[in-house]
Amino acid sequence: MSTDPKQVVILGGGFAGVSTARYLEKLLRAEQASITLINRENYWVYQPMLPEVISGSIGLTNVVSPIRRLCPRTNLIMREVEDIDLKKQILTVSPGFRPRQLQLRYDHLVIALGNITDFHGMPGMIENAMPFRTLADAMVLRNHVIHVLEEADVEEDPKLRRQLLTFVVGGGGFSGVEVMAELNDFVRSVKRNYLRLRNEPHRCVVVQAGDRILPEMSETLALFAQRILRKRGVEIILNDRLKAATSERAILQSGTEIPCKTLISTVPSALPPVVQKLDCPKEGGKLLVNTGLELKDYEGNVWALGDCASIKTVAGTKVPPTAQHAIREATTAAINIAAAVRGGKRAEFGFEGLGTLGSLGHGAAVAQIFGVRVSGLLAWFLWRCIYLMKMPGLNRKVRIVTDWLLHLLFPPELAQTKVAFESGIRNQHFEPGDIIFQQGDLGDTMYVIEDGECEVFREQKGEQELLATLGPREYFGEMALLSDRTRNATIRAHTAMDILIIPKADFNKLRQSVPAFGHVFTELATRRAVAGSPQSFAEPGTLGGYPIPIPTPESELGPMPGSPPATRAKR
Amino acid sequence: MSTDPKQVVILGGGFAGVSTARYLEKLLRAEQASITLINRENYWVYQPMLPEVISGSIGLTNVVSPIRRLCPRTNLIMREVEDIDLKKQILTVSPGFRPRQLQLRYDHLVIALGNITDFHGMPGMIENAMPFRTLADAMVLRNHVIHVLEEADVEEDPKLRRQLLTFVVGGGGFSGVEVMAELNDFVRSVKRNYLRLRNEPHRCVVVQAGDRILPEMSETLALFAQRILRKRGVEIILNDRLKAATSERAILQSGTEIPCKTLISTVPSALPPVVQKLDCPKEGGKLLVNTGLELKDYEGNVWALGDCASIKTVAGTKVPPTAQHAIREATTAAINIAAAVRGGKRAEFGFEGLGTLGSLGHGAAVAQIFGVRVSGLLAWFLWRCIYLMKMPGLNRKVRIVTDWLLHLLFPPELAQTKVAFESGIRNQHFEPGDIIFQQGDLGDTMYVIEDGECEVFREQKGEQELLATLGPREYFGEMALLSDRTRNATIRAHTAMDILIIPKADFNKLRQSVPAFGHVFTELATRRAVAGSPQSFAEPGTLGGYPIPIPTPESELGPMPGSPPATRAKR
Repeated sequence: MSTDPKQVVILGGGFAGVSTARYLEKLLRAEQASITLINRENYWVYQPMLPEVISGSIGLTNVVSPIRRLCPRTNLIMREVEDIDLKKQILTVSPGFRPRQLQLRYDHLVIALGNITDFHGMPGMIENAMPFRTLADAMVLRNHVIHVLEEADVEEDPKLRRQLLTFVVGGGGFSGVEVMAELNDFVRSVKRNYLRLRNEPHRCVVVQAGDRILPEMSETLALFAQRILRKRGVEIILNDRLKAATSERAILQSGTEIPCKTLISTVPSALPPVVQKLDCPKEGGKLLVNTGLELKDYEGNVWALGDCASIKTVAGTKVPPTAQHAIREATTAAINIAAAVRGGKRAEFGFEGLGTLGSLGHGAAVAQIFGVRVSGLLAWFLWRCIYLMKMPGLNRKVRIVTDWLLHLLFPPELAQTKVAFESGIRNQHFEPGDIIFQQGDLGDTMYVIEDGECEVFREQKGEQELLATLGPREYFGEMALLSDRTRNATIRAHTAMDILIIPKADFNKLRQSVPAFGHVFTELATRRAVAGSPQSFAEPGTLGGYPIPIPTPESELGPMPGSPPATRAKR
Repeated sequence: MSTDPKQVVILGGGFAGVSTARYLEKLLRAEQASITLINRENYWVYQPMLPEVISGSIGLTNVVSPIRRLCPRTNLIMREVEDIDLKKQILTVSPGFRPRQLQLRYDHLVIALGNITDFHGMPGMIENAMPFRTLADAMVLRNHVIHVLEEADVEEDPKLRRQLLTFVVGGGGFSGVEVMAELNDFVRSVKRNYLRLRNEPHRCVVVQAGDRILPEMSETLALFAQRILRKRGVEIILNDRLKAATSERAILQSGTEIPCKTLISTVPSALPPVVQKLDCPKEGGKLLVNTGLELKDYEGNVWALGDCASIKTVAGTKVPPTAQHAIREATTAAINIAAAVRGGKRAEFGFEGLGTLGSLGHGAAVAQIFGVRVSGLLAWFLWRCIYLMKMPGLNRKVRIVTDWLLHLLFPPELAQTKVAFESGIRNQHFEPGDIIFQQGDLGDTMYVIEDGECEVFREQKGEQELLATLGPREYFGEMALLSDRTRNATIRAHTAMDILIIPKADFNKLRQSVPAFGHVFTELATRRAVAGSPQSFAEPGTLGGYPIPIPTPESELGPMPGSPPATRAKR
């Protein structure tokens, strides 16, 4: 049965994965190998141009390329890899419409799953910081920016307007700098379409851990880039880093707090969980490979490349995680896989890089190519030409050039193409002193404290009266939600808090379908009806092993509509 | 204070609303009137070209136009109108980032909120049928179609593959026909990029209540359109209509069932809730206006136009809900508003229509203009020219022509630009005989029965054994969810059922934060641990007033990990 084609499976559809598939299609015939690529999307993202999606200077679907067209002979599986069994050579892939996992056997495996942004240990970052890696990230960011502009235009309070018009980027590498440059250009340009924002300043802040931005480049160019960005109104905070975030502000290591509604973070990176749990040698948190890009202990069987692999060239240079390197790694891996399948010469990775390029927004860039340093408009032309040439396919090239031309002629797009609005049960983080809600606010969510403490205040005639303190596993905000009333107290975080937020729609569905869930709040309502006055607060106690939430001040209401009689159910 | 500008507020950013704002900007000076437009999106959708978003022949943001650019002097509020108080002349607008409603006073009001697709009384349609009115609808549909193609390419079961490749449209008017034509063209064209689908047929079905499609046109043209569509492979089912839907199929009035994963419905229409609840005279469910487009009882104060108004021309003709009429209605309304603000001549609505146009996909259309009937390629050119000319602004015109040219040169886009994946607590409808889940499936959701009954089966050695019947307020599926095990029974709907689906992530969050919710399932687990064998089924009973869910067959498991000891908590 040696005539059966070998199963070559590639995990990941980035530069490394897609390039490997393309080379393999050239090197191996269909009867020699069947090539499969698994990626959660059916397209490959042209990362260098992704920030341009923010301003719409390149159309959404033009920064991506359908993998099926790039690799016409490759089987694409648009699913997620859930498990890699290196010993048994079996992959487990997430289910599709049918709730069944797919299992695939492989003869040769390429792991090119890249990395992810990991906010572990940074309170509130998961909930409030936006990553910037995928097309979805770029769309979400673009729509969010338009949303804050729309809201700022309606907002009367100058402090809130200022907060809505503040944009913070964590990470001053290429990715962070390019995102900020595009974002700044975009906001500056579309602001003139907002009647009340035309003369309002906006604030852009880049936070960088080192003592200069663009650590990937020479100091001269980085300092040039800093000057350009600052001239364009971008604040650069050096030697500091993001520590935490709430829905209202970014909090830095130094203690600096930046009130904002838009926080993007391009750092820190980590391996995807499925790669993290692999039982094989790693170096600096990445998969260790030899110069043939073979995974240690699995030579001739498994290759790892791109951002998830720790690679050294034959000369011993550590290989940086850039597109130009990923493409060359793919060539090396493809040659070696072909050699493993049908014999032939093997290759070793020796590419030392051509240079680096970074865009600083419209008409400015920095470049360092073959040792020559270029900056400004010339570098920007270079940037556009080089990346355009590297974009595979005439279709994309024509479309991108067209987009660029139209962008020069016409103002940027301003339509918010949001599909889904945030909803569902979710977590949120609050820092001490944060207002969770304010007396008089509309109530359309309820809150369960997971961690931390908060204080309940009533504001009357300009004075604040402390009514109670609530702690873990206590609830608040449910009464304003059961009625259509507004909140009649203010809740303020006393310590750092993690809270589970349950929106009205979910709350009502659960209350109807799972009576025990509803009972918790019926009992609360009963106690409050007995307590009578909103001011009468009892200490939190326990009831049948559950903590009894103390009556929060939205308590004039009787039992919930549609719920059982307000006496405790006999059990 | 008669020199204060009058507050003119326009509700709705469709053809009628945006055109009114544009005319008013010309007719009234800033010191005469302040114009405000409230719309949930910051863009205006060019409805006639919306179906082209499906195939990507027009880029996403090119079928829409930012309202701020169309009406530069108008205040745009990107929110939803929640209440209209005609008596007090006050509008309530939904909250933004801050949980506070906005209240606006108006002197003159234009209601142009269009209509919505209303699936009331059609079981399972809300959950499973996709409307097609907004840009978001078009994006969701496009992404869904790409998703089913991707899944069909991986699917081994020919029956499921056929189901994935079936597309059903409810409604054979212009909207339904144009969507189906574009969808069919798109699927046919991109299928060749799917290795396993190239030679696989796909199925497109239009369901129309009348005895022909396109009731808006003459019979000759409608029959021509039917022939064209059928030649292109579209099935047309006449004299029938959608009655219900599940996630697996569309169910027609006649009893016909079409297994499909894609169901689009352009009918039936209803007024938006905020307009429905208005206390003013209506006709045929729409707002009754005079020939000056003034709302009855609120003449000189409130105007209603577009799809939400019942309008007759001065000649007594009933005005159809089309774009050409909406634009002329806007002129009439704007003239009359200007007259109310600063005096002057009033206008009456007398536009009798120029004709009708409908696209049948690439290279074919039907048109009926000034009484002349045109069909085929000529009508298609006419369609493109007329709608292009009517698109306001050079920017859009250039972009659309460019898109059309590129679409002729290159294959359609294939990237799935999905941002959010369906999640959260949701409802689903099942019809008798439907399999809710199958033994061996992965379990990542639990189910609460809201209405109807289902049967629990165990399949062993090819035989099915009925284990139990479950009814309202009973739960199932939670055990496979607590562990990482697969389902070990099959659940089949016995009657029509409505079920609340709780995904694993939400389930676990609630279980941790609201102990009473977790206890329901701990008790279930305890009972099952006592019951011992998976086969031992008790009749459903009640426990402390709650229905006790009977042990479903995923019951070998002990108490849930991390939950309190498996004895009933003392209360």
